Amino acid sequence: MPEELVDKTHVVTCTAPVNIAVIKYWGKRNEELILPTNSSLSVTLHQDQLKTTTTAATSRLFEEDKIWLNGKEEDINHPRLQACLREIRRLARKRRNKVDSDALGLSHKVHICSVNNFPTAAGLASSAAGFACLVYTLARLFGVEVELSGIARQGSGSACRSMYGGFVQWLMGQKKDGKDSLAQQVESESHWPELRILVLVASAERKHVGSTSGMQTSVETSSLLKYRAESVVPGRMEEMITAVRRKDFPAFAELTMKDSNQFHATCLDTYPPIFYLNRVSHQVIHLVHRYNKHCGETRVAYTFDAGPNAVIFTLQQHVPEFVQLVQHFFPPEINGGQFIKGLPVEEASLSDDLKQAIGLEPMPKGVSYVISTQPGPGPRVVEDQTQHLLGSDGYPKESA
Amino acid sequence: MPEELVDKTHVVTCTAPVNIAVIKYWGKRNEELILPTNSSLSVTLHQDQLKTTTTAATSRLFEEDKIWLNGKEEDINHPRLQACLREIRRLARKRRNKVDSDALGLSHKVHICSVNNFPTAAGLASSAAGFACLVYTLARLFGVEVELSGIARQGSGSACRSMYGGFVQWLMGQKKDGKDSLAQQVESESHWPELRILVLVASAERKHVGSTSGMQTSVETSSLLKYRAESVVPGRMEEMITAVRRKDFPAFAELTMKDSNQFHATCLDTYPPIFYLNRVSHQVIHLVHRYNKHCGETRVAYTFDAGPNAVIFTLQQHVPEFVQLVQHFFPPEINGGQFIKGLPVEEASLSDDLKQAIGLEPMPKGVSYVISTQPGPGPRVVEDQTQHLLGSDGYPKESA
Repeated sequence: MPEELVDKTHVVTCTAPVNIAVIKYWGKRNEELILPTNSSLSVTLHQDQLKTTTTAATSRLFEEDKIWLNGKEEDINHPRLQACLREIRRLARKRRNKVDSDALGLSHKVHICSVNNFPTAAGLASSAAGFACLVYTLARLFGVEVELSGIARQGSGSACRSMYGGFVQWLMGQKKDGKDSLAQQVESESHWPELRILVLVASAERKHVGSTSGMQTSVETSSLLKYRAESVVPGRMEEMITAVRRKDFPAFAELTMKDSNQFHATCLDTYPPIFYLNRVSHQVIHLVHRYNKHCGETRVAYTFDAGPNAVIFTLQQHVPEFVQLVQHFFPPEINGGQFIKGLPVEEASLSDDLKQAIGLEPMPKGVSYVISTQPGPGPRVVEDQTQHLLGSDGYPKESA
Repeated sequence: MPEELVDKTHVVTCTAPVNIAVIKYWGKRNEELILPTNSSLSVTLHQDQLKTTTTAATSRLFEEDKIWLNGKEEDINHPRLQACLREIRRLARKRRNKVDSDALGLSHKVHICSVNNFPTAAGLASSAAGFACLVYTLARLFGVEVELSGIARQGSGSACRSMYGGFVQWLMGQKKDGKDSLAQQVESESHWPELRILVLVASAERKHVGSTSGMQTSVETSSLLKYRAESVVPGRMEEMITAVRRKDFPAFAELTMKDSNQFHATCLDTYPPIFYLNRVSHQVIHLVHRYNKHCGETRVAYTFDAGPNAVIFTLQQHVPEFVQLVQHFFPPEINGGQFIKGLPVEEASLSDDLKQAIGLEPMPKGVSYVISTQPGPGPRVVEDQTQHLLGSDGYPKESA
């Protein structure tokens, strides 16, 4: 039976990146289609550090659609998962005649297996990379070659931005059916080679309000959010695109910080209020502003999504000193080597002058570890057949 | 010489209350005149628990104007202090002829001595009570009988609201010279006898940004503040006045919480952002919302000024249980008797069901103590001559 399965199985493996918004998405005008109340803009993080890998396979011997996430079988009937599956199959059918359909396994059931190379406990939004990878992989499996961000969007809003590398905008669109609510690359991942990204993983203090229910409550109760979406974000999108195109770090950095703060301000204006920033986040914010002030220029920016982890933007030449500052003001539990993951960071020494200028009380173990990365490309096909997460029997390999 | 001074000294002692805003004041349209960007509304706290006492005296033997605050001589040339002194003297002169002026000591120097009956370390805004008391006392001393809130406003914006008891609105006014930016009583202190106020004094974690510089930065950088002032507050003022007049606790409470949150949201939208709420404040906010949810009605409200202390509003019948909850989730260092100051609070027991429903991790010593109080009257003259803070020599008594 396994041998027969191998023959009949059509299988594809792809990877997709995480993205971090610098102009934030918070609020839907249509819950079902996931249409946002404002446009947003993000940087795609490099898959060398953070990625989702997904294998999808069809076989006439599969009895039902199945999905495994990070080693655990999950409910395939999740509405958003079904929306993506349905859309991809619909598009595939549209483009193929009956014979082709059979060859592509369109009439067959699908098995999907997906893993992240970063711990869920890190609190990084994995749904964007996850749905982007799912949609990209299914599209490859079924030979769909159209623009896919509109489908990824229906899995998880921000997933549409993970369909491209580099700097990506999600245009909110105007149409009721959402056909124009799509992601678009602003600049590719090679545009700004000096830009570096540090994910400061904060030790979790408490469970937070999920982003889906959080943004719904914000839309219902925050008048500041409505104002932000209508009157602040359109101008900021233009400013941000200009800053990115010009590689104007101070402009990029300041707008990134302001927009993160405004997003969290609208969370606080929600009733009951939502807090995603904790003590560690506040300390990181103070650290960044005091460092920039001490330097007399904006060298570092922070942004926070719906959780306490800081994502830091800086330029390559400032990474060693800033990472050293993080280690100084958040003395780690583990030694320096394990504290920094990802792209190597050179050692740096801090002047007493600088430490005094920052003047914060060190917060031991406030930051669990730092992931050092940079802008990266969009989803990719994994050509190496040995990398499939599903075995020849159509079930997850032990390692997956 | 002391005897001569007694003869020639004209002396008055008055007290004035603290107030807590339920529709917040944040932002000036004119720094010098202290004209706000929006109207605000406050509750005057009872002077039995929190008050400033001020003695002012004139004598032809005084060589210069002098002021002592909480036992320490301070600079009489502080511009805002001078603004109040100048205004009161100007009004006094306007209403008196030369002979009267001399009798009232208008041509003489003044000595002022002021004390608070609450520790500055408590983080309660003492400038409102302080300037209200100063202006009220000087007006009595110099026989000025006009509306005084416009003068108190020039000492410290929120001081104008401490010129009245009960529920007070500060109308922002429209005039350039600020003549119509005045406080007005909405309802007296006897209007809502069941209303209780608890000040939860949070242990200070760090020094915060002062409100004068903080609100200036907010006006300059927060687009949400501008929107709030222009488009949100006018409607909220009307709603709040209606809720107060009707003694509609749920409406009063919800609007109070929403407005506190929105004020802190605009602080977060300031660049660099300002944080006044700390871990303890967040825990109090969660406690209040979970308690109300568990009760199935809004029984308790919080509000926070430019600091981490929570001011709680509730009705008399809910005080014992809520105070017990505070003691449970912020286990005090000191025993129960000293933990609660002010109006006596009956003991209450908490059901396991309630404690579980709240489900917060207790935060030992997060709240230093609780001041239990209620709405109270405006400034008063102290008739008892033995209560003067200045001795017969015109200098602070040892106890002052």
